[in-house]
Amino acid sequence: MSSFGKLFKVTTYGESHCRSVGCIVEGVPPGLKLSEEDIQPQLTRRRPGQSALATPRDEKDRVQIQSGTEHGLTLGTPIGLIVLNESHRPEDYGKGTMDLFPRPSHADFTYQEKYGIRASSGGGRSSARETIARVAAGAIAEKCLSLLYGVEIVAFVSSVGTEHLFPPTEIHPTAATNPIFLGLIGSLTRTQVDEFLPVRCPNKEASERMAKTIAEYRDKQDSIGGTVTCVIRNCPVGLGEPVFDKLEAMLAHAMLSIPATKGFEIGSGFGGCEVPGSIHNDAFVSSVPIAPSQSGVDALQNGTAARTPRLRTRTNNSGGIQGGISNGEHIYFRVGFKPPATIGQAQDTVDFAGKPGILEAKGRHDPCVVPRALPIVEAMSALVLMDMLHEQLGRQAIFGQLPSKR
Amino acid sequence: MSSFGKLFKVTTYGESHCRSVGCIVEGVPPGLKLSEEDIQPQLTRRRPGQSALATPRDEKDRVQIQSGTEHGLTLGTPIGLIVLNESHRPEDYGKGTMDLFPRPSHADFTYQEKYGIRASSGGGRSSARETIARVAAGAIAEKCLSLLYGVEIVAFVSSVGTEHLFPPTEIHPTAATNPIFLGLIGSLTRTQVDEFLPVRCPNKEASERMAKTIAEYRDKQDSIGGTVTCVIRNCPVGLGEPVFDKLEAMLAHAMLSIPATKGFEIGSGFGGCEVPGSIHNDAFVSSVPIAPSQSGVDALQNGTAARTPRLRTRTNNSGGIQGGISNGEHIYFRVGFKPPATIGQAQDTVDFAGKPGILEAKGRHDPCVVPRALPIVEAMSALVLMDMLHEQLGRQAIFGQLPSKR
Amino acid sequence: MSSFGKLFKVTTYGESHCRSVGCIVEGVPPGLKLSEEDIQPQLTRRRPGQSALATPRDEKDRVQIQSGTEHGLTLGTPIGLIVLNESHRPEDYGKGTMDLFPRPSHADFTYQEKYGIRASSGGGRSSARETIARVAAGAIAEKCLSLLYGVEIVAFVSSVGTEHLFPPTEIHPTAATNPIFLGLIGSLTRTQVDEFLPVRCPNKEASERMAKTIAEYRDKQDSIGGTVTCVIRNCPVGLGEPVFDKLEAMLAHAMLSIPATKGFEIGSGFGGCEVPGSIHNDAFVSSVPIAPSQSGVDALQNGTAARTPRLRTRTNNSGGIQGGISNGEHIYFRVGFKPPATIGQAQDTVDFAGKPGILEAKGRHDPCVVPRALPIVEAMSALVLMDMLHEQLGRQAIFGQLPSKR
Amino acid sequence: MSSFGKLFKVTTYGESHCRSVGCIVEGVPPGLKLSEEDIQPQLTRRRPGQSALATPRDEKDRVQIQSGTEHGLTLGTPIGLIVLNESHRPEDYGKGTMDLFPRPSHADFTYQEKYGIRASSGGGRSSARETIARVAAGAIAEKCLSLLYGVEIVAFVSSVGTEHLFPPTEIHPTAATNPIFLGLIGSLTRTQVDEFLPVRCPNKEASERMAKTIAEYRDKQDSIGGTVTCVIRNCPVGLGEPVFDKLEAMLAHAMLSIPATKGFEIGSGFGGCEVPGSIHNDAFVSSVPIAPSQSGVDALQNGTAARTPRLRTRTNNSGGIQGGISNGEHIYFRVGFKPPATIGQAQDTVDFAGKPGILEAKGRHDPCVVPRALPIVEAMSALVLMDMLHEQLGRQAIFGQLPSKR
Repeated sequence: MSSFGKLFKVTTYGESHCRSVGCIVEGVPPGLKLSEEDIQPQLTRRRPGQSALATPRDEKDRVQIQSGTEHGLTLGTPIGLIVLNESHRPEDYGKGTMDLFPRPSHADFTYQEKYGIRASSGGGRSSARETIARVAAGAIAEKCLSLLYGVEIVAFVSSVGTEHLFPPTEIHPTAATNPIFLGLIGSLTRTQVDEFLPVRCPNKEASERMAKTIAEYRDKQDSIGGTVTCVIRNCPVGLGEPVFDKLEAMLAHAMLSIPATKGFEIGSGFGGCEVPGSIHNDAFVSSVPIAPSQSGVDALQNGTAARTPRLRTRTNNSGGIQGGISNGEHIYFRVGFKPPATIGQAQDTVDFAGKPGILEAKGRHDPCVVPRALPIVEAMSALVLMDMLHEQLGRQAIFGQLPSKR
Repeated sequence: MSSFGKLFKVTTYGESHCRSVGCIVEGVPPGLKLSEEDIQPQLTRRRPGQSALATPRDEKDRVQIQSGTEHGLTLGTPIGLIVLNESHRPEDYGKGTMDLFPRPSHADFTYQEKYGIRASSGGGRSSARETIARVAAGAIAEKCLSLLYGVEIVAFVSSVGTEHLFPPTEIHPTAATNPIFLGLIGSLTRTQVDEFLPVRCPNKEASERMAKTIAEYRDKQDSIGGTVTCVIRNCPVGLGEPVFDKLEAMLAHAMLSIPATKGFEIGSGFGGCEVPGSIHNDAFVSSVPIAPSQSGVDALQNGTAARTPRLRTRTNNSGGIQGGISNGEHIYFRVGFKPPATIGQAQDTVDFAGKPGILEAKGRHDPCVVPRALPIVEAMSALVLMDMLHEQLGRQAIFGQLPSKR
Repeated sequence: MSSFGKLFKVTTYGESHCRSVGCIVEGVPPGLKLSEEDIQPQLTRRRPGQSALATPRDEKDRVQIQSGTEHGLTLGTPIGLIVLNESHRPEDYGKGTMDLFPRPSHADFTYQEKYGIRASSGGGRSSARETIARVAAGAIAEKCLSLLYGVEIVAFVSSVGTEHLFPPTEIHPTAATNPIFLGLIGSLTRTQVDEFLPVRCPNKEASERMAKTIAEYRDKQDSIGGTVTCVIRNCPVGLGEPVFDKLEAMLAHAMLSIPATKGFEIGSGFGGCEVPGSIHNDAFVSSVPIAPSQSGVDALQNGTAARTPRLRTRTNNSGGIQGGISNGEHIYFRVGFKPPATIGQAQDTVDFAGKPGILEAKGRHDPCVVPRALPIVEAMSALVLMDMLHEQLGRQAIFGQLPSKR
Repeated sequence: MSSFGKLFKVTTYGESHCRSVGCIVEGVPPGLKLSEEDIQPQLTRRRPGQSALATPRDEKDRVQIQSGTEHGLTLGTPIGLIVLNESHRPEDYGKGTMDLFPRPSHADFTYQEKYGIRASSGGGRSSARETIARVAAGAIAEKCLSLLYGVEIVAFVSSVGTEHLFPPTEIHPTAATNPIFLGLIGSLTRTQVDEFLPVRCPNKEASERMAKTIAEYRDKQDSIGGTVTCVIRNCPVGLGEPVFDKLEAMLAHAMLSIPATKGFEIGSGFGGCEVPGSIHNDAFVSSVPIAPSQSGVDALQNGTAARTPRLRTRTNNSGGIQGGISNGEHIYFRVGFKPPATIGQAQDTVDFAGKPGILEAKGRHDPCVVPRALPIVEAMSALVLMDMLHEQLGRQAIFGQLPSKR
C-alpha cells in the first residue's frame, strides 16, 4: 500500500506526470510550530540538478501545507502536503521506443503485469518523484524528534561502485570495529556532508575518487550504484516492538521500500557475521553511578527511561539495537542502491509484444542516485522512529501509573 | 507487535520457559487438507541437537492443531497452533551470574529498559523458541503456495565466518552474475541441503571448511556468524504492493525480524551496487510466442497473468523483483546472522547495577545459528508471499470482471 | 485515525477553513474509467444551500483528481482528490462568543482537551466539511460496485423528530416485517428520493410533515434530529470477515464515524428484539433448481458464489447479513442523527475558563442534517463493501485453485 | 479478521467443538499483577447453566494463562490464553436434520457460501463459544483500566421482548433525559446486577416481568430478543481518534461484532433524534475553579488532562462522547440482541440442496441471550478503551515534552 506507519503514518500519492504529488501525515503531535520552511530544505536537498553529475531537469518542488496547522501551530489533525508537478502532460511523452519497450530492470514490465495497465511515461508511480512525499513527511517527523530528544539523523555516501570510504579489510571486515568510522558517525553533520557536493561523501580523497567514477559512467551513457550509510544519534532507549516489528526490521522495511535499493545492514552488518562473538559482543559499561535501587522500573515510573540509558556499551557492533530495541547507542546502518536502470547505452532487449529490438533511453538520467538518496534515507528513518516512539511513550505512561495502585 | 501480515496473518506468543509457545494463523484458505504432519517436518528441521555442532538440549517440539480444521480440512477460520514447553520452570534458572548481568549483545538490557521488567531466564520472549511459532505458521503458508503454483522455497548456508560458498571476486562482486550460483539456485532442493548436515551448505568442500570453522569456535567457547541464502522458485508474477510494501521491503522486514539477523540483500545485493547498469540491467527475452493482442490486460482478465510471465529476463540481477513486484524469475536473497551473543568465554562487563564483573555463560549454546536458521528463513518467506498473493488475487478478480462493463 | 479500510482505503485531511480538504484513495482497481464527473454528483447532493431548509452558504465543492488516472483510466495507484476551501481565512472568524465558549454538544471542548489546541473557528476537523472527502472516495467505490455487480445503494430520510415514515406499531415493532417497507426498499432510486427535496423522504405526506417540523425548529432558532434508512441491493454473497469484522460491525463503525450520529441498527434492528424467534427467523426458500452436487464448493470453484445465492430467504429480518456475512438479500440499516449542536437560541453555559455566560451562535446553521446526510451514508456503505469485496474475492480465487491439486 | 485493536489487541481462535478456544492478547502493560483469578470471574458470569432460564449444558470454561507472565507479573509480552473444549468430538454431532438444513437466521448458510465449507456442527466459529476469548481478554483490559483510573464498566439487561426497564415515553423518548435512569447508571454495580439473576435487570418488578416473558417463549420452544445497556464510569477525557475511529464508532464496531446483535446507540440514541437541540445540547458547567491561564495546554503538559475534565456538562445526552472523544462524563450505550435463531419449534424451510422440509432443532438452547451477554458487552468495552488509551497517552507524553523547546 501507499501508507507507512501505524501511529505516525504517512500516506502518499502521485505519479511522475500527474497534477501533483503529495501526502497526508497522521499522528503529528499537536502544538508543534510548523511551516513550509521546516519541510523545504530536505526537499531541496533531494532535488536533481544540483551539479553536473546529476540530471539537469529543473524541478522546483515547492511544498504547500494544505491542512492541519493554524497560526503556525499543528492542530494534531492530518497534515496535507502538496507539491505540484510543473509539467504534467503525459501526452508529450512516450511516443518513442521507451513506450514500446519495457526498460530492463525498471518497473515498466511488472506494473503492466500487476495492474494490466501502466502510466505511459516517466515511470509513473515507480518514478523517483514518488519520494518527494516521503521526504516532506520525514521532515515533520525529524522536527519532532529533534525537539523532543535532540535526535540527529545524518546520511552520507559511503561507496560508489568499487570506491569505498571504508572498504572491508582483514582486520576490519566491518567498519563497525574501525575507530575512525565510529569517530566519524559520532559527530558528522549534514552541513559537513553537503560540503562534499556533488558526491556527499565526507572525505575529500574518497569523494574525488567517487566523483571520477560517476563521471566515467556518465560519459559512457552508463550508470553505477553505491551505498549510503546513515547514523541516528540521541535516539531514546526502548524503541522497537518485538517480535515482528523490531526496530531494525522496521528500518529494513523502510529502506527497501525506497526505489532502487538492494540491501540493508544494521550495525556491523554482513561484515559482522565474519567476526567471532568474543569480539562482536558489546560489553556493558556503567554510564553514570546509580544506586542499586534505581532499577529500570523506577526509571520508567519517573519517565526517564526513554532518555538516558543507565548502562552504555564499550563497542557498538549492535548498531544501537539489541533484541529489536534501541539501547541508547548510535543507530547506524547501510543501504545499497543499484545502478539506475535507465541508461543511454543501447540495450538488446524485446518490446512488450516480445519482439527483439534495441532500446536507447532518451533524455538525461542520473548516472548514480546515491548523492540524492540521502534525504530520502534520513526521512524514512525519522518516520520509523516517530511511529515507534508514540507506541513506547504510551506504554511508559501506562506503566508509570500502574505500580503504586496494583 | 507479535503479529505479521495483513490477510494471511500470524500472531505469536510465548517465552522460553512458559507453558507453551504458539500462534494463531488467520487467512488460511478454506478447503485445504491440513494436519500436524504438514507442519512437523519444518519444526523438526529447526530443532537443536541434530549434530555435535548444535546445542544438545533435546526439545521435542510437537505441534498440536487446536482449531480451524475438521475432518482434516481447513474451515477458513483461524488455525490455533500450540507447542508445549517441556520444562517450563523459570524458578530453576537464573540463580547465578546470568541473572545479575545483562548478557552483552543480548536482549536482557533492552527488554529491562523497555518494559521495566524481564523474564528471569533463558531470554524470555527474545529466545529462539519464539521462532517455533513462525516455522509452524510458515509451513501452512508453504503448503498453500506449493499446491497453488508449485512454489519451492529453499534456503541454504552460504557462509560461516570468512568461509563463503561464493566469495565475491573481481569478476563477480556479486554471486548474481555467477552462472554456477544461478545454476545452483535453479534446482537445489531441501533434501539436497539436508545431505550436508550439520552445516547445510550444499557443497562438500565448502561445507567441510565451515564445519571446521564452527568446531574451532565451539572449542574456544566462542561463536561465529554466517549467512543464509534463500531462493523462491515459481513465484507468480505481480506480487508486492508498491510503494511501501514492495515485495523486497516485506521480505526485508520479515528477515530482520528473525533474532540475530544483521543484514538483508535482494538479488545482486550490495555486490550489485559495484556493477555498472549496462551489465546489471536484466534485458528481456520473449518466453513464449504471443500474439500482439494478448496484452497484460487480457492476461489479467483470463486470470492467467499471475502465473506465467509473457516476458522473461536474460539475467536475474534483480532477484525476481522489479519495482517492488515479482517478475516471475527466481526470487533470491541473502540474510546475515551475527555470532550468537551467549558464549562460554569470560566477558568483562558490568551487572544491571553498573558494577563491573566477569560473565561466563553456563550451559551449552549454539556456536553458530545459521544451519538451524534455514527453516525460519523459509517460513518467513512463505508468510510474506501468501499475504501478498491474497491481495493481488483479489485485485485481479476485480479487474477481470470490470472491463467489459465499464 | 483519518484512514478507513484495509484494501480499499481512504485517508482524509482537512479542516473547515484550511486551504483544501481532500483524500487519498488506495486500492482502486486498475483499468476503471474515472473522471471528476463520476465524483461530482454525490458531492453536489451533499452541498448545503439546496433549499430554504438548509444553510444558505454557497460552497462550490468542485473536486479535482490529482493522480492515479491517465487518459481517463485508473492506474491501480492511489487517487489523490482535492476540493478547495473557497474562503480559508481563519483570522476572520472566532472573534466573538463562539471562540470563548465551547459550544454545548459540539467538539470544541473535547478537541481542546485531547489535543491541547483547537482550530479557532468553524469546527476545524470536526466540521461537516470533513465529510466531503468521504463522499468523494465513496463515489469511486460506488462506481466499481455498480459495474461489478450492479450494486445499488440508496439512502432516504425515514424520520425527522417524531415524524416517521414507518413508525413502530404493535404489529410491526420493526419496519422489517412490514411489506410496504420491504416493497419500498426493493425498488427505490436516488432520483425518486431527490424528487422529495428538500426533505428527501420518499413519501409526499410524510415528507410534508417532516418539512413542517424542520421549518418550525428553524424558526425557533432550534434544531431537530432524524434518521436515515439505507438499502444496498445486489450485494454479492459472502462479504464480511468474522468474527470482529462482521459486515454489520464494519457498517456500524462506518456510520458511527459520521458526525452527529447516535445510533445504528441492521435489518430488524431494535424493534426486531421485541419479536419472537419463530417470526424473526428468515426461513430459506430455493431460488433456482440446482442439482445436489452443486455445492457451495463447486460454486466457489466456478467463481460464481459471490453473485447469486443458491438459497434465498422468505423474509429478511436479518437485513441481508447472517453470521456477519452477506447472504444475497437486500442489506438495509438505519442511522440516527442528533439535532445539530449549533443553534441560534441563547444557551446558558460556561466559557473555556469556566465562567458562566450566554452563548448565541451567529450565522445560519442547518436546523436538521438528515437530508444532506444521505450521500455520506451511501458513501460510507460503498467504502465498506469494496474493502470486504477485495478480501473475499482473493479468498475465492485461492480456494478456486486449490481443490483439484490438494 | 479475528483480531481486534491496534495497540491493545486481541486475536482469537476456536470453534464450538475443536480442542480449545483461546486468544493472544498483545499490548498488555508490563508489571501488572495477573493470574487466572483475574480472568475467571467474568468467564463464569457468561457461562450457561446459571439458571432454569438458560441452557443447562455444564461447561467448565477454566482459563489457563500460557505465556506473558512470570512470578505473577506481566512481562509486556503477549498473553496466551486457552480454555479447553471439554467435549470436542464433532463426529458425534450433526447426523440429523441440523446438518442437512441451514438453520434460518443462523450462520450455517453464509459460512458455507463464503468459505465453501463449514464446521459440521454446533455453529463452529459462529458459536457463542467464540465469545469466551473476548471475555478473557476483556478481563485483562478491565483490570488495567480499574487500576489506572478506577474505571467501572457495568452492563445490565434493559429490555426483554416488549418489557422495558425504561420504555420510551412522550416526555422521555430517550432514557437519557430521565433522571431515574441517570441515577441508576451513576451508581449501579455488577454485584447489584447479579442479585437479579437469572435476568440481570436491576429492578425487581421489571426483572420479574422479563423472567415471565422468557419462560413463556421457552415453554413454546420459541425465543425472544432484548437489549443490554452498559455504562462506563471514570473514563478519562480525550479517548477516541477522529475522524474514522471516533470512540462511539469503535464501540459500535465492537458491539456489532458480538453474535446476535442488531443495533447500537450511544447516549440518547435513536430517541435523542426526536428531541430538539435546545433540550438535547449538554450545556457546560464549571467543575472546579480554575485560573484563566490553566488552559488545556497546561493540563496536558502536566499530564493531568486525561483525568479530570475542567468543565462538566449539566446533562449527558451525548453519552460521555463529543466529536468522537470522551468528555469525562459517564459513557453509556445500548445494544440490541435478536431472538436466538435456534429454536425447537418446527420451521418450514429448505435444506442445503434447496429441498423443502421441516427443521426442528434438537437439544436445549437459550430462549434469550441477554442475561449471558453482559460480560461480553463489558469485555468489548474494555478492549476499546485500552486501545484508545494507549494511543492518547502516547500523544500526551509527546505533547507534554514539546512546548518548552519548540
